[in-house]
Amino acid sequence: METIGFHYVVEAAGCDPEILGNADKIRQIFLEAAKVGKMEVKASYFFKFSPTGVSGVVIVAESHISIHTWPEKGYAALDVYTCGTTADPEKAVDYILDKIKAQYAHVSEIKRGIEEDDETFTHMILTWEEKLERKNGDEKS
Amino acid sequence: METIGFHYVVEAAGCDPEILGNADKIRQIFLEAAKVGKMEVKASYFFKFSPTGVSGVVIVAESHISIHTWPEKGYAALDVYTCGTTADPEKAVDYILDKIKAQYAHVSEIKRGIEEDDETFTHMILTWEEKLERKNGDEKS
Repeated sequence: METIGFHYVVEAAGCDPEILGNADKIRQIFLEAAKVGKMEVKASYFFKFSPTGVSGVVIVAESHISIHTWPEKGYAALDVYTCGTTADPEKAVDYILDKIKAQYAHVSEIKRGIEEDDETFTHMILTWEEKLERKNGDEKS
Repeated sequence: METIGFHYVVEAAGCDPEILGNADKIRQIFLEAAKVGKMEVKASYFFKFSPTGVSGVVIVAESHISIHTWPEKGYAALDVYTCGTTADPEKAVDYILDKIKAQYAHVSEIKRGIEEDDETFTHMILTWEEKLERKNGDEKS
């Protein structure tokens, strides 16, 4: 497996609080996101913590995707990190943002595992913000 | 739990290949790192993939720590992310880098979950490089 990978570090805001608080729903979304992103799932773990919020990690052959949610704030901290060239992590990010009904995303794309001439490794970061337009049918009431 | 968290995205180079290829050893290091960083472990998962390399994730109450290793390159992609004020993620990073005998680290510290006035959330990134000095007794032969 090559060392180069893409890691998306995402702050998702304006999400649906009911979805963010539902560990089963988040698990479903994540397992489907792994398929959409062409990742091979090795293990997954989700739990609901007290009083609200869900933590979840899916370990994929190419790396991992994870989420930690704060339903009361409509906020989720999302990571999608894959190595190699077969996976499509950005599709997985878009799928998850759509399903948790995020209205805004602050995203850093980190290109990791860049091998330098002196046998060290570095990463490069590109950051942007997205205001997500949804179809009327997808709007929160 | 407050949304603010610190996420360390680390490219570790010049690591000990034997340690990077040993899933049991990496698990030991990670569970101890969670203690050092004052994190409460909820679940952990490690596996060795073919032909070499280890993937591991520890889910802690405050978020997660993960590693993916390439022993043949002496390289590991490390993440330590914790929320709240009780954990000490930087100590966990330093502990892990020491135990895998990294000689060089390219680190981005991402302050996540920063709530803005318009109910969106952003993150801020600070990047640096470290050349790690080791005592003679810790040097690789």
